[in-house]
Amino acid sequence: MTQDISTVRVGLDDRGYDIEIGHRILPDAGARILGRISGLRRAVVISDSNVAPLYAEPLIGSLDAAGVNATLVTVPAGEPSKSVEQATAIWNQLLAERIDRQTTIIALGGGVVGDLAGFIAATFARGLKFVQIPTTLLATVDSSVGGKVGINLPGGKNIVGAFWQPQYVLIDLSLLDSLPVRQGRAGMAEVIKYGVIADAEFFEYIETNVEKIRAHEPGTLKHIVSTCCQIKADVVEEDERETSGRRAILNYGHTFGHAVESATKYEKYLHGEAITMGMQCAASLSVNLKRIDAEMADRQAALFRQFELPVELDAALDSNELLELMRRDKKADQGNIRLVLPTKMGHVELVDNVPDHEILEVL
Amino acid sequence: MTQDISTVRVGLDDRGYDIEIGHRILPDAGARILGRISGLRRAVVISDSNVAPLYAEPLIGSLDAAGVNATLVTVPAGEPSKSVEQATAIWNQLLAERIDRQTTIIALGGGVVGDLAGFIAATFARGLKFVQIPTTLLATVDSSVGGKVGINLPGGKNIVGAFWQPQYVLIDLSLLDSLPVRQGRAGMAEVIKYGVIADAEFFEYIETNVEKIRAHEPGTLKHIVSTCCQIKADVVEEDERETSGRRAILNYGHTFGHAVESATKYEKYLHGEAITMGMQCAASLSVNLKRIDAEMADRQAALFRQFELPVELDAALDSNELLELMRRDKKADQGNIRLVLPTKMGHVELVDNVPDHEILEVL
Repeated sequence: MTQDISTVRVGLDDRGYDIEIGHRILPDAGARILGRISGLRRAVVISDSNVAPLYAEPLIGSLDAAGVNATLVTVPAGEPSKSVEQATAIWNQLLAERIDRQTTIIALGGGVVGDLAGFIAATFARGLKFVQIPTTLLATVDSSVGGKVGINLPGGKNIVGAFWQPQYVLIDLSLLDSLPVRQGRAGMAEVIKYGVIADAEFFEYIETNVEKIRAHEPGTLKHIVSTCCQIKADVVEEDERETSGRRAILNYGHTFGHAVESATKYEKYLHGEAITMGMQCAASLSVNLKRIDAEMADRQAALFRQFELPVELDAALDSNELLELMRRDKKADQGNIRLVLPTKMGHVELVDNVPDHEILEVL
Repeated sequence: MTQDISTVRVGLDDRGYDIEIGHRILPDAGARILGRISGLRRAVVISDSNVAPLYAEPLIGSLDAAGVNATLVTVPAGEPSKSVEQATAIWNQLLAERIDRQTTIIALGGGVVGDLAGFIAATFARGLKFVQIPTTLLATVDSSVGGKVGINLPGGKNIVGAFWQPQYVLIDLSLLDSLPVRQGRAGMAEVIKYGVIADAEFFEYIETNVEKIRAHEPGTLKHIVSTCCQIKADVVEEDERETSGRRAILNYGHTFGHAVESATKYEKYLHGEAITMGMQCAASLSVNLKRIDAEMADRQAALFRQFELPVELDAALDSNELLELMRRDKKADQGNIRLVLPTKMGHVELVDNVPDHEILEVL
């Protein structure tokens, strides 16, 4: 099993890198990382209080076996660790340990750890090499690929950050078995997203393989993760820094979803749950704007329901507050809301200037 | 006079930019910036409590006249503003003012303002466009060109930062007339450095034009600033991220100088003064290692003295402490000190593994 590995290349010239996807490959991580970053002698592994007890030891052991001296930095699990205070504590720790430019930062965890560790890598000593080892489904298919890193301010998620590509992404799918069921389902929201925005056949594949996916059947799991990484790699190659609009398609459901997360203080819903509501709002809006028929919106909702994801917008939320939060999204341009709306299964478009009353109608 | 402008191009493919050098061009800044960043409507000017009262109004007026809505952020003058706390305050302010990715950050000030504002530009909303308007001699010839931005931690200068190139650098030499005399002299340390590391003829030009330089004779001032910017641009083009070793030649005198600054808590000496001592240490070491003759070290010292720069190392400093601080420099590799040493006027080399006793000999 160990040798059955899929490789997705993110082709970004001198910033290009491989994503390797397989089962039980964490024990080989040291040698695999060394194969990408030759001469590596020193690494800092950043992880969190949930993941480190499970996987830090085998990772650091494999680094040690490869001749890489690794230090472990563990942060509390959860979104609050993506803070200036936590970043400052790590910067000071790296300084105290005399970490220099020859050191590689390795993120071992979900999206929070990847975003925080990547921000540290992007900024310490003006930039260190970086490796991602995602441990949640959401991170494997989304945040570990593409180089978006960052931290939050009290009033804005991911508002401080950078584009900082890793040198290598190692995805050991067997780590996902330890994931809480709710987290696994939330990750499926992003997986389904890729079908809707870019690949109608993939959407159909998910529809016909729900049971295998839920059972983590190895071949099926590898296929869905590889397909998502490939779609994301293609989009990132075309528009690394989200300037042309192409990369923005990945934000399908996210402008609505971020407003839901913000209005509920990032406590009530997981990211995947919030963007499920967001994607369903976007689909309903598209139906109202006659961009798609109701059947497509229903088909999307039906697949979300297969993974027990919340398709109905939380009724406790105030429509006007959500609209205001959408206007403040950092992807807004001078307060104009830019939405990603589907036109058919497997295709979305960027739409500016949707009238407020149309947005309010679906909130 | 206004139209007599020198342009130095920093050729970095899609990150390339122009440096424009002239007298009394600040009143045209708005139109000039708009010429580089088309469609610009919003800017944030970051300045300090010394510079803002002098030059913020004409700059913001010229932006306004060009149709660019500008907000002024003023930080206390001095190195302590290059802190995580100050950066966080600015990030929060930009968030509160709903600054988005279409905004350009303009640094109006010396090296502290440029480094801080550049770090904000590199990290807010994952990166904003950036313009440098340096107001000190040191910043015009050094920190405003080349994209090094960053802030300090209590234990480490510039330890948190990025490489973030500006879109444009505007150098209005008439602003230098308001500079305190001591600051102007300190800037000459970096100017002389360029002669020693890369251009023997330029060193001679400085030697023969001391009086004109001290009098800020316009043509002479423009020649020295343009020459320094051109040398720096050439070096940065060859080695933008300081990976090949080429860019490291700019650090001549800096490993010694940073140790002096650190040992004196950044209070006793200006940067240019500390690196003057550093360059003289490096020259003496080179004499001891028989890389240059004593005549060249004396010639360098004589030129520093013409600008009343301190060529003798502060006798109050402890040699062993300085050596230890040099080892901790972020450019050190696993504790090995890498020194930039001259071999003849206009040429330096990177030298590893100089024995401790040789370094201590010149401290």
